[in-house]
Amino acid sequence: MEEKRLIQIYTGDGKGKTTAGIGQAIRARGHKFKVCFVYFFKNLQDFPYGEVEILKGLGIETINFVPRHPHFYKNIPPQGVREECLKALESVKEIFEKNYDMVILDEILIALRDQFLKEEEILELLEKKPGSLELILTGRGATKKIIERADLVTEMKKIKHPFHRGVKERRGIEY
Amino acid sequence: MEEKRLIQIYTGDGKGKTTAGIGQAIRARGHKFKVCFVYFFKNLQDFPYGEVEILKGLGIETINFVPRHPHFYKNIPPQGVREECLKALESVKEIFEKNYDMVILDEILIALRDQFLKEEEILELLEKKPGSLELILTGRGATKKIIERADLVTEMKKIKHPFHRGVKERRGIEY
Repeated sequence: MEEKRLIQIYTGDGKGKTTAGIGQAIRARGHKFKVCFVYFFKNLQDFPYGEVEILKGLGIETINFVPRHPHFYKNIPPQGVREECLKALESVKEIFEKNYDMVILDEILIALRDQFLKEEEILELLEKKPGSLELILTGRGATKKIIERADLVTEMKKIKHPFHRGVKERRGIEY
Repeated sequence: MEEKRLIQIYTGDGKGKTTAGIGQAIRARGHKFKVCFVYFFKNLQDFPYGEVEILKGLGIETINFVPRHPHFYKNIPPQGVREECLKALESVKEIFEKNYDMVILDEILIALRDQFLKEEEILELLEKKPGSLELILTGRGATKKIIERADLVTEMKKIKHPFHRGVKERRGIEY
């Protein structure tokens, strides 16, 4: 029986979007799905995200696009970031051709929020999703039209976050 | 430097609570944390949750309490479930003594929502959390007092869910 594969979105200002994406990747891989985890705006070279080596070790493809967000790397010109994002979109379309069962586009919605990508460019990407692919988008910044186009949307809503009390990003928890 | 370990809660009616817990477990394990994933109300014997074998293979302890919820197993008397939950709480206190860096109590808040455990019983458990332990509770049903006691709380809010359109639980995605 072929199962229906959907578009999922995890958005909102609370903790748990990327971690839910990782959880989905692991669950799918446990059923031998072919999974690709695509990171946007995370510099895996500079930051030792705890999950990356585990994902790789389990045979989950990991790809890193637009590693430097101008918010954190002040000398990066925004126009260059837009070009990188457009190039990444083209690469994601190629990834769509590779018969994955699940692709996670982690933090891609940040590109929309920060105007490196346009809503219609993301919508056009979603049109290209193969029927056999479960596609997961994470990041603050889902728009009404993108939510309309998706099948499953969860808003991670911050009720409480200790960064407000001055707790810094913690190894093994936030990265 | 000893880092501060906290109480995290993932609650609400949206998808992503357990998967965020799995993601946290994986990230922590990637940094060689000692991790224990405790399932409540999930029958791992009957349902092949995709992540379980992977968690085990990575050296994450997995434990299964109260596997049968009366909502799904109609012949289970609620009083027996309360007793099982109380026994599970005692076992969790023993787990707290075992020097884990992270313990996930998946769906434990369902016990509260469905009145198998009392709020003060959960609060008493939280008082027993060692300072060196990151404790994660998931499930619908977090109360105001439990949210007050926690350090980090995310509400997973359902914006859209395909079960409403008749999409059934899917292997590799929902389990």
